[in-house]
Amino acid sequence: MQGNSSKRAAAPKRGKTTNEPLLNRDSATALYIQIADRLRAEIDAGTFATDSKLPAESELTQRFDVSRVTVRQAIAQLLADGYVVSKQGKGTFVSRNKFVHDLKPMRGFYDALVAQGVEPKTKLLEFGPVSTPEPLRQAFGKDDGESDCFRLKRLYLVDGEPIALVVSYLPPQASGLTWEQANRNPIYVLLENLLAMPVAQAQIRIRACSAGTSVGRALGLSPRAALLVMDRESFDGNGMLLERTSFHIRPENYEFTLSVQGPLPVGSSIKNVNGAASHDHAA
Amino acid sequence: MQGNSSKRAAAPKRGKTTNEPLLNRDSATALYIQIADRLRAEIDAGTFATDSKLPAESELTQRFDVSRVTVRQAIAQLLADGYVVSKQGKGTFVSRNKFVHDLKPMRGFYDALVAQGVEPKTKLLEFGPVSTPEPLRQAFGKDDGESDCFRLKRLYLVDGEPIALVVSYLPPQASGLTWEQANRNPIYVLLENLLAMPVAQAQIRIRACSAGTSVGRALGLSPRAALLVMDRESFDGNGMLLERTSFHIRPENYEFTLSVQGPLPVGSSIKNVNGAASHDHAA
Repeated sequence: MQGNSSKRAAAPKRGKTTNEPLLNRDSATALYIQIADRLRAEIDAGTFATDSKLPAESELTQRFDVSRVTVRQAIAQLLADGYVVSKQGKGTFVSRNKFVHDLKPMRGFYDALVAQGVEPKTKLLEFGPVSTPEPLRQAFGKDDGESDCFRLKRLYLVDGEPIALVVSYLPPQASGLTWEQANRNPIYVLLENLLAMPVAQAQIRIRACSAGTSVGRALGLSPRAALLVMDRESFDGNGMLLERTSFHIRPENYEFTLSVQGPLPVGSSIKNVNGAASHDHAA
Repeated sequence: MQGNSSKRAAAPKRGKTTNEPLLNRDSATALYIQIADRLRAEIDAGTFATDSKLPAESELTQRFDVSRVTVRQAIAQLLADGYVVSKQGKGTFVSRNKFVHDLKPMRGFYDALVAQGVEPKTKLLEFGPVSTPEPLRQAFGKDDGESDCFRLKRLYLVDGEPIALVVSYLPPQASGLTWEQANRNPIYVLLENLLAMPVAQAQIRIRACSAGTSVGRALGLSPRAALLVMDRESFDGNGMLLERTSFHIRPENYEFTLSVQGPLPVGSSIKNVNGAASHDHAA
């Protein structure tokens, strides 16, 4: 219901309270949703600090005067929303604030994190020539079937926890780069400063998938864990591909945002509707 | 590695071929990745049509002259990427083209689907007053603690399969709407045409999460299935909240795109780097 993108204030913790506002037991809103909403608002307000343990089930059962099943449903909801994380054998903890990656300005993944006051650590896992994947050959402007491109695989960590696995394909020109340079520099620095290939435009796709075995292992997740994925292709002023990168991101801590300006376009279904009920379908 | 956003051409199927380009067995790229890349390119090229069955493991084992384990890894990769779907007891099938939802123009979810030539069916699951969730009270401009807002819950289906569960909160003014109106009209039609509340701006967040029990059930997925989520808040010209909607989307068939124009901003880490290796961290 509520963005946890807003920074949570460091409010004082409160203990058990006698003036708990009552749940609305006549509402069409299920009790567990009401409880999840309440807890979410308290997390946003800083009542429960980041990384602190959520109160035990028994405590929440008492506080809201509901069954244990209802409390479990509420917590499952918070887990699904990424507001809390479950740590094996330790309990349920409040997630840290999400990193909010504004899509509007062009900037690299590293800079998007830095812009939020985080200094991510990175770990270069792989950098070297690979046979250019078929779909990239022509885009890299070398369609002779011979040239290698360069693949760079990197792990991003925040507070020692991996948050993203990044795999980049760089054009054959990247053969001039050393491991040390690839290790120390964001992709866009490699392109703009070290290869003198300025980026003019990027095409971004955002999707979700299951981690699968190898990505899951790199990120410390089960193969079935949900991931947020950004695929990016960056081009120079002539439309030549400069890099293609996939960012596989742990979703608990990350979201993309964008502000879109209206008005709604002419020709949308908005403009076609005649009053109340001229549509067969909806939404 | 390759966008399946591009429409797949209806190319003729090919049977077994004797001029199979060899896998590069000396490459740093694992064989299963090379095979996944090859199959992905063939799916993109239309060699395997949408909804057609992928060749059996034994056939792929023969074709690529690799072990069954390697073939399984390649298929797991395609599954993770959403290129194929596994149907219980039936085999592995080529996914349909992803719906590509361009984020740049302001338009509703319904219109974004229509813009891609799809006529989604919708099913209204719930429409009625609910106690306004705490975080929305002030935003809806009614902070008296009394007013109800309206919740609308809708399922979107394409070809009879659910693709998204949508939950909207509409302001108290929506009390004038009938179930029939809510059933037949997109959110933005309800706001602009029926409530005379034109939308000037929308704030969008995109994230991923696990489905959880209730959303999973609505979409026919396991609770652990990965979902793509768009949260949208729409505002009028005075910054007053008109609606808040969460779109829980099956990720196999959907992705968001955005084109971002450069150049990279002054003040990014790009501009701070001095030549080769002045950074401690990277990417």
